[in-house]
Amino acid sequence: MTTVLKLGGSIITEKEGVEKIHEPRLGKAVGMLANADISRLVLVHGGGSFGHHHANKYDVSTTDGTHDPDAVLDIHEAMKRLNEVVVHRLNEAGVPAVPVHTLSTASRDAAGALTLGTTAVETLLAEGFVPVLHGDVIAHEGKGVTVVSGDEIVTALAQSLDADRVGLCSAVPGVLDAENNVIPEITSFESVAQALGESDATDVSGGMAGKVRELLTLGAPADIFGLDDLAAFLAGKSPGTRIDGRGN
Amino acid sequence: MTTVLKLGGSIITEKEGVEKIHEPRLGKAVGMLANADISRLVLVHGGGSFGHHHANKYDVSTTDGTHDPDAVLDIHEAMKRLNEVVVHRLNEAGVPAVPVHTLSTASRDAAGALTLGTTAVETLLAEGFVPVLHGDVIAHEGKGVTVVSGDEIVTALAQSLDADRVGLCSAVPGVLDAENNVIPEITSFESVAQALGESDATDVSGGMAGKVRELLTLGAPADIFGLDDLAAFLAGKSPGTRIDGRGN
Repeated sequence: MTTVLKLGGSIITEKEGVEKIHEPRLGKAVGMLANADISRLVLVHGGGSFGHHHANKYDVSTTDGTHDPDAVLDIHEAMKRLNEVVVHRLNEAGVPAVPVHTLSTASRDAAGALTLGTTAVETLLAEGFVPVLHGDVIAHEGKGVTVVSGDEIVTALAQSLDADRVGLCSAVPGVLDAENNVIPEITSFESVAQALGESDATDVSGGMAGKVRELLTLGAPADIFGLDDLAAFLAGKSPGTRIDGRGN
Repeated sequence: MTTVLKLGGSIITEKEGVEKIHEPRLGKAVGMLANADISRLVLVHGGGSFGHHHANKYDVSTTDGTHDPDAVLDIHEAMKRLNEVVVHRLNEAGVPAVPVHTLSTASRDAAGALTLGTTAVETLLAEGFVPVLHGDVIAHEGKGVTVVSGDEIVTALAQSLDADRVGLCSAVPGVLDAENNVIPEITSFESVAQALGESDATDVSGGMAGKVRELLTLGAPADIFGLDDLAAFLAGKSPGTRIDGRGN
């Protein structure tokens, strides 16, 4: 049983300010992870106020690249600072977390398709460690480097590792319908396209509609939930919204 | 034309002390690299007083492993501190160096054989960056993590990238014969086995005999030379000892 879990940047950092950890929320997430009885867990965290600030400064996104090494170092080192805090907090709580830096093991081809090497992640998992990846900049054929989001890493990991469960712990309690109620289960995009809004439906980069579309293609169910539900997810339950396109 | 160049840990750090950069020698190496007209260059550096101190503390070597995450973090973070200094000095001198952390992209199987993922390195090279890898700890099937040496990384990179030239810049001016003279060229192990000493001939981990044996198996010539000869190597010459087993 392999689980890939993302901790959103909006959970573990403060939205306002530069490179500020949200201590209460990170502490809560770490506590739930330390109390969970779970093996073969891979964590991915977003950038929050560590990554986005620096990426904006250099106008770098998942599609807009740069060949400026200063941009690479500024963004990558900020993400490593956040990763180091997350990894150390987890270890202090007894979770054998070790860092895996995405820039070192991923790249995009000219079409933007992501290749994520997992030789390190797979062997670390087999040896009982909890690899912790993160949003980052990565080499992009023809564009220098571009941003890779935590969500993209989750999808690539889930596919490469043939994960059994995928969790996305973020600032929202699930996928919301037009009345802001959590949709408990999504098995096809058509069933929720209207609720997610037409304008959103064409956004494949970061919006909820794009995220739902991508998670529907996985060979495993994915749960989208808020921080309060992390313990339930780690206990094997399906809080928030379950996205499962395997029947299609 | 792809070049893989190792800067020995004994060159860029002070042997005595803990985590001390050898500023004059690092500055000299960086200056030569900044003045070189060379494309598709991958750098690898050893650990010197950054890596060995921490590895010794936890009794970790290329064959003796640990599952202690504190050991992983202590050794890996020390190597990242050294790598960050090297990468920044290079950038300050105009070399577009970017870090690639070996723990994130390599592992060993149960027999100790190294797999080094190069998707990031290859795309970074193609985009004009100079990837800088380093000796590190990596996941090792059945043993937790073990040390990977800069020399091992050089060999793996040279093979994966089908490198045209390999350079090892270290504290010695080349491979020395029994009279301490530099041997200009080695094309077979038999021709130098006696000069390298019988006891050394069985050492495959770090001794010069083991290094020569491994470099003879590459599909490219390898030059072993001292810091004073780095500029000559970067200019396309073959200072020190040339090791070329391609005729065998």
